Amino acid sequence: MRTDQQPIRITLVAPDGKMGRAITAAAEESDAFSIEPDHGDVLVDFSAPEALQATLDRALAAGVPVLIGTTGLDDHADKRLADAAKTVAILRAANTSLGVAVLSDLVERAAGALSPDWDIEIVEMHHRMKADAPSGTALALGDAAARGRGTPIDAERGRDGTGLKRAEGAIGFASLRGGTVAGDHDVVFAGPDERLILSHRAENRMIFARGALAAARFLHGKPAGLYSMRDVISSE
Amino acid sequence: MRTDQQPIRITLVAPDGKMGRAITAAAEESDAFSIEPDHGDVLVDFSAPEALQATLDRALAAGVPVLIGTTGLDDHADKRLADAAKTVAILRAANTSLGVAVLSDLVERAAGALSPDWDIEIVEMHHRMKADAPSGTALALGDAAARGRGTPIDAERGRDGTGLKRAEGAIGFASLRGGTVAGDHDVVFAGPDERLILSHRAENRMIFARGALAAARFLHGKPAGLYSMRDVISSE
Amino acid sequence: MRTDQQPIRITLVAPDGKMGRAITAAAEESDAFSIEPDHGDVLVDFSAPEALQATLDRALAAGVPVLIGTTGLDDHADKRLADAAKTVAILRAANTSLGVAVLSDLVERAAGALSPDWDIEIVEMHHRMKADAPSGTALALGDAAARGRGTPIDAERGRDGTGLKRAEGAIGFASLRGGTVAGDHDVVFAGPDERLILSHRAENRMIFARGALAAARFLHGKPAGLYSMRDVISSE
Amino acid sequence: MRTDQQPIRITLVAPDGKMGRAITAAAEESDAFSIEPDHGDVLVDFSAPEALQATLDRALAAGVPVLIGTTGLDDHADKRLADAAKTVAILRAANTSLGVAVLSDLVERAAGALSPDWDIEIVEMHHRMKADAPSGTALALGDAAARGRGTPIDAERGRDGTGLKRAEGAIGFASLRGGTVAGDHDVVFAGPDERLILSHRAENRMIFARGALAAARFLHGKPAGLYSMRDVISSE
Repeated sequence: MRTDQQPIRITLVAPDGKMGRAITAAAEESDAFSIEPDHGDVLVDFSAPEALQATLDRALAAGVPVLIGTTGLDDHADKRLADAAKTVAILRAANTSLGVAVLSDLVERAAGALSPDWDIEIVEMHHRMKADAPSGTALALGDAAARGRGTPIDAERGRDGTGLKRAEGAIGFASLRGGTVAGDHDVVFAGPDERLILSHRAENRMIFARGALAAARFLHGKPAGLYSMRDVISSE
Repeated sequence: MRTDQQPIRITLVAPDGKMGRAITAAAEESDAFSIEPDHGDVLVDFSAPEALQATLDRALAAGVPVLIGTTGLDDHADKRLADAAKTVAILRAANTSLGVAVLSDLVERAAGALSPDWDIEIVEMHHRMKADAPSGTALALGDAAARGRGTPIDAERGRDGTGLKRAEGAIGFASLRGGTVAGDHDVVFAGPDERLILSHRAENRMIFARGALAAARFLHGKPAGLYSMRDVISSE
Repeated sequence: MRTDQQPIRITLVAPDGKMGRAITAAAEESDAFSIEPDHGDVLVDFSAPEALQATLDRALAAGVPVLIGTTGLDDHADKRLADAAKTVAILRAANTSLGVAVLSDLVERAAGALSPDWDIEIVEMHHRMKADAPSGTALALGDAAARGRGTPIDAERGRDGTGLKRAEGAIGFASLRGGTVAGDHDVVFAGPDERLILSHRAENRMIFARGALAAARFLHGKPAGLYSMRDVISSE
Repeated sequence: MRTDQQPIRITLVAPDGKMGRAITAAAEESDAFSIEPDHGDVLVDFSAPEALQATLDRALAAGVPVLIGTTGLDDHADKRLADAAKTVAILRAANTSLGVAVLSDLVERAAGALSPDWDIEIVEMHHRMKADAPSGTALALGDAAARGRGTPIDAERGRDGTGLKRAEGAIGFASLRGGTVAGDHDVVFAGPDERLILSHRAENRMIFARGALAAARFLHGKPAGLYSMRDVISSE
């Protein structure tokens, strides 16, 4: 990375949250980034769903791009993001690791290549404190699979009981919680007598912080629009 | 196996079911077993929960031991089995594979050795037609873990939603369904910064049939009482 | 599949081998294929490396396409196959499962998307009787990874000892043997603090037989040339 | 942990090595331990095989117990350790995590319960810089499996080539290297149509440091003898 350039100034919505502190630590590893309490080149929000509107308002007021790493957003969020993306560059990512961005691309491709009689199941494991299930990343991987198949997603979540019948074309989700697991995701394609399993293992949270910085570098100076981590991968 | 002995005569409650046919095929591999339509030395039931009482009545009337491989039994079944076990030998197994019997023993031992801050999660995958979730085997492994800890089981099933909080000491269950998977089970012990994972993979149903024959041999001539596959393992 | 067509007549080089019998069984599941002792529409060879030249001669003499499923071929085989492919259609596959064909495509794509500091390791497990290591499929997956990176393959095999140093850009191979495992393959991309793992699980050999039939259907009537299972996938 | 006691004073042979620094960091988490440059209550060596004799001499001269966490020791080391253990307490551990100690116990137990026609394979993955293969932990797990079977170990390492034949009763080892992986170990028991897989995943090196402190606490005041991490587990 060239060091004769000005560092990209990043403003964190929640600098004292887990991800805020991790991004600050990752930025300190490099000359290419600095953390600014306010008026940065890129706004970064890994806080909570409730903060979304305020973050978008702030980005629109300042005319700066924004990275939204919050998970657990409701359906209204889609519209708010799309509206704001008419004016500024917005990258929304349930997971900012580069490995997960590649995984998402592979999942879409595999779902397109395999016939629909290959059932798709997604299982994830996270530390015991994670409050939402399935993880935002698991849901995003499910969306990628449905895109690959060219069908709307038909999710089966929280499977439990008797007399169950797996719907044809459904995508199943299961969530494990325990210990200090940073984040494991497996997408299982189960066909007749064979399985294809696409997995990601996060060893710690630094990968999300480093990926968030890569996303911020990508966003810096980008025109208005809605972007994803896969755009970041393509640009690396 | 000695061939100078009379073969053990097995009577199947549902000879035309999937397991009935598999046991018949497994019995044909060996001189030690024969399948009798009626009046066998051991009665074997892999049918449906509704058949339990009739099977027990039949075993009591004939005075023969019985292997119950049915899953999805309700709480009343426990009492019925205990009552019948006062008169005949009964072996109840959610899973008759020898590998799962060993796994169950290891799970109990690991749960006893690890401090309670190691969270326990159990995940299983079966073919798309399986109607109950979690599998009977997963539930039995959960019971083994709880026994090892010396506490009643506190199961978390069908985890789905937001604002979740993993209860201290809980055992989580998750179920995947798809393709033709014969049966995968993983018991995850997630501690601070490390995990112990105990897994079983069934390649096909023949392991259950062969294990059922091993259980029938074990039961033949046994006194009244309630037995498990772990007794079979110890006797092999 | 249309049944108003003549079945594709398949001639097996080794009809009594494991794969020969599996392909015969798979052909019997469908009206679309028949097995002919001689003079079929497509020649299928899953025998041994020594048989290669005779098989190619036979295909050239009859002017029919040929599927080569043999593994453990030496470097001379490449030239022989290329020569014969000037005259007839040849499909060479270390593994005829459709799932592995998709896996191979994903491995190439992932290797192209990830920077070279993601180390690549390939591990496979097969039944205890398999005589070659690594499996032909593992080697083919390594080739796909090297193609994705755009570099010649630098293989590290049989890692064992002290004072080892993983070469930059190497692709490592490891082989497990035991039991009755039909075939497991994992391609691990290990980056800084995260891993992407692409896996295939074969439950039994029927997937190779069914894939061989799909390959034979693809080859029937194809012009001279060298094809792969990925061409079959694209045509399905 | 009682805090009215004097902290256990630990002297590190290589305080500036990776493990030395990790143990120092772990000791700072607790009042129960202090790091002393010299003359501690317990000597701890995670340095290199060459240092062994000097470490043992130092422990014998000071009359203090010693924890040997070095891997890659040669066969002479066994005798040296046994000799020194006549005078001071010595705990040798290829891996000081509590999870691996439990895994080792389970592996021994499973190998004892399963008939010898269940093949045993051990595969491990570590970061790209690790210089020895298989890992010391993998070898120790192989020893545990052989103990469970009651036979001397017959190791198959670095499997590579053609015309291979898995020896009956062999234990296979395979090593993957890449990225920043802290340490994964899988012990696979492959039987007819089923597998039992016992796995450990280390998320980072702190587990080894914390386990080393648990071992030091165990050793403090112990009589002469040769101990293992399994003694530590039993005492917790």
